Amino acid sequence: MRNIDEHSITPAVLESFAQCSDPRLREVLSALVQHLHDFAREVKLSEPEWMAAIEFLTATGQLCNDQRQEFILLSDVLGMSMLTVALNHAKRPEATEATVFGPFHVHGAPELPLGGDMGAGAAGEPLFVNVTVKGPDGQPVAHAQMDVWEADAEGFYDVQREGLPAAQGRAVFRTDAQGGAHFKAVLPVGYPIPTDGPVGRLLQATGRHPWRPAHLHFMIQAPGYETLVTHIFRDGDTYLDSDAVFGVRNSLIGDFQEHPAGATPDGDTSATPFHTLRYDFVLEPSA
Amino acid sequence: MRNIDEHSITPAVLESFAQCSDPRLREVLSALVQHLHDFAREVKLSEPEWMAAIEFLTATGQLCNDQRQEFILLSDVLGMSMLTVALNHAKRPEATEATVFGPFHVHGAPELPLGGDMGAGAAGEPLFVNVTVKGPDGQPVAHAQMDVWEADAEGFYDVQREGLPAAQGRAVFRTDAQGGAHFKAVLPVGYPIPTDGPVGRLLQATGRHPWRPAHLHFMIQAPGYETLVTHIFRDGDTYLDSDAVFGVRNSLIGDFQEHPAGATPDGDTSATPFHTLRYDFVLEPSA
Repeated sequence: MRNIDEHSITPAVLESFAQCSDPRLREVLSALVQHLHDFAREVKLSEPEWMAAIEFLTATGQLCNDQRQEFILLSDVLGMSMLTVALNHAKRPEATEATVFGPFHVHGAPELPLGGDMGAGAAGEPLFVNVTVKGPDGQPVAHAQMDVWEADAEGFYDVQREGLPAAQGRAVFRTDAQGGAHFKAVLPVGYPIPTDGPVGRLLQATGRHPWRPAHLHFMIQAPGYETLVTHIFRDGDTYLDSDAVFGVRNSLIGDFQEHPAGATPDGDTSATPFHTLRYDFVLEPSA
Repeated sequence: MRNIDEHSITPAVLESFAQCSDPRLREVLSALVQHLHDFAREVKLSEPEWMAAIEFLTATGQLCNDQRQEFILLSDVLGMSMLTVALNHAKRPEATEATVFGPFHVHGAPELPLGGDMGAGAAGEPLFVNVTVKGPDGQPVAHAQMDVWEADAEGFYDVQREGLPAAQGRAVFRTDAQGGAHFKAVLPVGYPIPTDGPVGRLLQATGRHPWRPAHLHFMIQAPGYETLVTHIFRDGDTYLDSDAVFGVRNSLIGDFQEHPAGATPDGDTSATPFHTLRYDFVLEPSA
């Protein structure tokens, strides 16, 4: 293992994993090392470029905290998140497709009764959401746990706003006996992913825009089914064909309708125009 | 760019760099994305594995500070540092070979006169170092700046010890008119790289030991020559053939001699055995 050159380094590192007692870990790390080394040789990575990469990765890690995950954002903009989703969710065609998780989910969001207002004061036009959760043969999935989260009318999630006293634009609901769920939210709008960190600098340097098309996030969990992590997108959004994180699927574009001021689905009356959304989720049974 | 699957994601991400105005940045990122995606497809990366990688990278970044660089350490143990060195230092055969920079260099170490004691109180057996710095035709390189840094007898660099009042085991010297430099240090010993962070957990999980063979670090800079970053290793060390960071080259093994108590090269007398090291560096002229 002395006198290693730019070719012998790779078998030397692979051989260093020979005593690894976890075969899957050895497989993953060996493939990673082979591809990283091939990358460096292919572009003849320079030492200043290597140091710039070290500094970029360091800054990315240091920006992460309980409410921000810059490494997930980096994975998102490099297509690694969507690739991992695609590799792991080959399903029957009728099952709802998955998309990226994103960096803004929060564990332990407040659980609200059906009909509740997950906006909780977030700015935005009223949106009344009505969905069902079913299995592939149309059987209702009762009592499914449904996490929903969204940005406000200015494109910010609550965790991006300092000093909010409580959750806004995020909640947990449970489907009823028929697999139904309805609740009030705010109309989602397109927004730029955070551009004040290393990922924003990467997009800037590569001439990429940071915009995501308007969407609501859903995570739906129920015994006997695979957990579904997905979005419902708004049709007509400018960025449906250039999502900064490559997450759009046609099957995930929801039926949003705009309504004039007047009676709303919750039996109240809106003095301003409001919106409704209908969508039917189909869960994939667990393997 | 809708309905992306595990194959179409890669051209979609490459296409997203089409507006990048820096051709080298585009080349490097495109190759990186291609290899990262190939890696994920090849091992069919699972979502828990992806999340474990996100958490590993985050923890690696968060452990970095002014005195610790865990991402360099990660690069070192994956062979990326040595590979980058190998890719960038193709030199004439007589030029001294380079090796890894490592995470323990400190900018602005104290400059000492020739003959000075860079140990500065560090524990260890006395070592008297006598080196020359020359060009490939034997011409002396006068006034070269020579950074030297080393671990103490317990295997720790000064930056790994909290609350030290001043540098220990690191200094900057200048070669004399004949390209010579001599100074006092401590005998280097083999040591484990830091194992209390993510890199240590990686080594543990893969059954790798964390040891590096005993060495002194040198960085030598002079106008008209490429900067040389290298080590001088001690012959006979247990870990010369399994260096945790793949850095050993036979040409970098120095001529260490042990001497009984008595007169030392600095004109003093040692009551204990002491060591001497001779080495002749040859710099590569700048391109």
